[in-house]
Amino acid sequence: MKLVRYGKPGQEKPGLIDAEGKLRSLAGVLPDIGPAQLSDAALNKLQKLKADKLPLVRGKVRYGSPVAGTPKFIAIGLNYSDHAKEAGMPIPAEPIVFTKAISCIQGPDDDVMLPKGSQKGDWEVELGVVIGKTARHVTQKAALDHVAGYVLANDVSERAFQLERGGQWDKGKGCDTFGPLGPWLVTKDEIPNPQKLAMWLDVNGQRMQTGNTRTMIFSVAKIISHLSEYMTLTPGDVVITGTPPGVGMGMKPQRFLRPGDVMTLGIEGLGTQTQRVVAFKR
Amino acid sequence: MKLVRYGKPGQEKPGLIDAEGKLRSLAGVLPDIGPAQLSDAALNKLQKLKADKLPLVRGKVRYGSPVAGTPKFIAIGLNYSDHAKEAGMPIPAEPIVFTKAISCIQGPDDDVMLPKGSQKGDWEVELGVVIGKTARHVTQKAALDHVAGYVLANDVSERAFQLERGGQWDKGKGCDTFGPLGPWLVTKDEIPNPQKLAMWLDVNGQRMQTGNTRTMIFSVAKIISHLSEYMTLTPGDVVITGTPPGVGMGMKPQRFLRPGDVMTLGIEGLGTQTQRVVAFKR
Repeated sequence: MKLVRYGKPGQEKPGLIDAEGKLRSLAGVLPDIGPAQLSDAALNKLQKLKADKLPLVRGKVRYGSPVAGTPKFIAIGLNYSDHAKEAGMPIPAEPIVFTKAISCIQGPDDDVMLPKGSQKGDWEVELGVVIGKTARHVTQKAALDHVAGYVLANDVSERAFQLERGGQWDKGKGCDTFGPLGPWLVTKDEIPNPQKLAMWLDVNGQRMQTGNTRTMIFSVAKIISHLSEYMTLTPGDVVITGTPPGVGMGMKPQRFLRPGDVMTLGIEGLGTQTQRVVAFKR
Repeated sequence: MKLVRYGKPGQEKPGLIDAEGKLRSLAGVLPDIGPAQLSDAALNKLQKLKADKLPLVRGKVRYGSPVAGTPKFIAIGLNYSDHAKEAGMPIPAEPIVFTKAISCIQGPDDDVMLPKGSQKGDWEVELGVVIGKTARHVTQKAALDHVAGYVLANDVSERAFQLERGGQWDKGKGCDTFGPLGPWLVTKDEIPNPQKLAMWLDVNGQRMQTGNTRTMIFSVAKIISHLSEYMTLTPGDVVITGTPPGVGMGMKPQRFLRPGDVMTLGIEGLGTQTQRVVAFKR
């Protein structure tokens, strides 16, 4: 099942994408798609709806993040061995954890705004995991039982803010507009194996990143299990799981985002995103 | 005005502490104390209530965090010059920003549980700032206009998780129970100058930390202004602002938390907290 939230920012309505790729409204069925709607029981109930009986939404719509009210937005660094190499950093012994501010979450195709003074905006296509069930000290084997589904993410980053401003990455990871999520929350039944998904990212039509989740250092199950040892994960939490090689920081010469650039990215089964990069404005 | 939330975890009701130090219920006035209740207008309305007409709450109660639904829990590192020195780290050129998981927030007197495998649990008395109004690129001069009030915080930390697990601090800062907040949200009219508040922390009755917010490297106004350049701060966000000297990591020999320890801490005008340290349990 592909769940979406569509409409103006802050006024999104729930919907789903039917078997023919058409948008159907869930507004008469659910108040929204958020922490309370992500349990197995709630999702199973939705699975039983006859999608072709739901109202069709016509015309072009904006999509928001497919999950409302995300409590935590956690990210894993350097989780693809080739990316760690291009970043000039050692392969980590255990997952590197950092946080993106939830205020940076936006729709998949909303503009990405470079923050004031930004010189080193960069891209990172990533597999996002949406938690469906509270996870506290879960084993690797049981980890995926706590997942509601998956989402495409661009872990937009400002490398100078991340790496040259005093030691912690969070400053360059949570700027407004740096968290495009969507278009779809794809429930886990459609992604039986999250470790074999092709992924890619273009800037201005030029292929920058090509990867596959099979080359992750730490699998999704390992990440969820590991994180759940450090903090309780709750429904609606989004965990993004690292990026394959091809970021601007790793190029020779380095190539950073400029106003007018267009990022297009996708992961097999999770749809695509397109973001126009715009200059800072107050 | 001293706002509180009292009752069992997850079922807290809003209240206030009257001029005689008595707890009065606000349950008939407000649904809760959260992002929607922190604007100047909402707080001014509360200020006009006659506290002595509100129902008295008798007996011993548990306090929760005085702010419900905190969207972001941001922290500043090494913000007291003496603490940076004891931590063996250089005085930062600009505020060091990290994030505490919101799932670690708890009441001021709830037990602090050492996470599994913890050997280096530590304490940090801190001034917390509660945002009342959306702050985006605010000047230092205007920064405090975006503050609803102040709260006492213990930035409980696991130093091995923070510093010895691959580079980012978040892993040792957001463990469950590591974010005691309260007892009171003290509205800013009662704290005209947040840069002259005495603060202290005892472990088992022995004074460990003694400080004053006047020795902050970056003032509250500077921190809010600076953060608002990196991310939009929204009502209910809590920003904790660093700790003075005297943490366990800085002692010779180092002294870390063990089950049975009791932390007691306070900041002038913001009340006190007492936490019993307990061993990990599933």
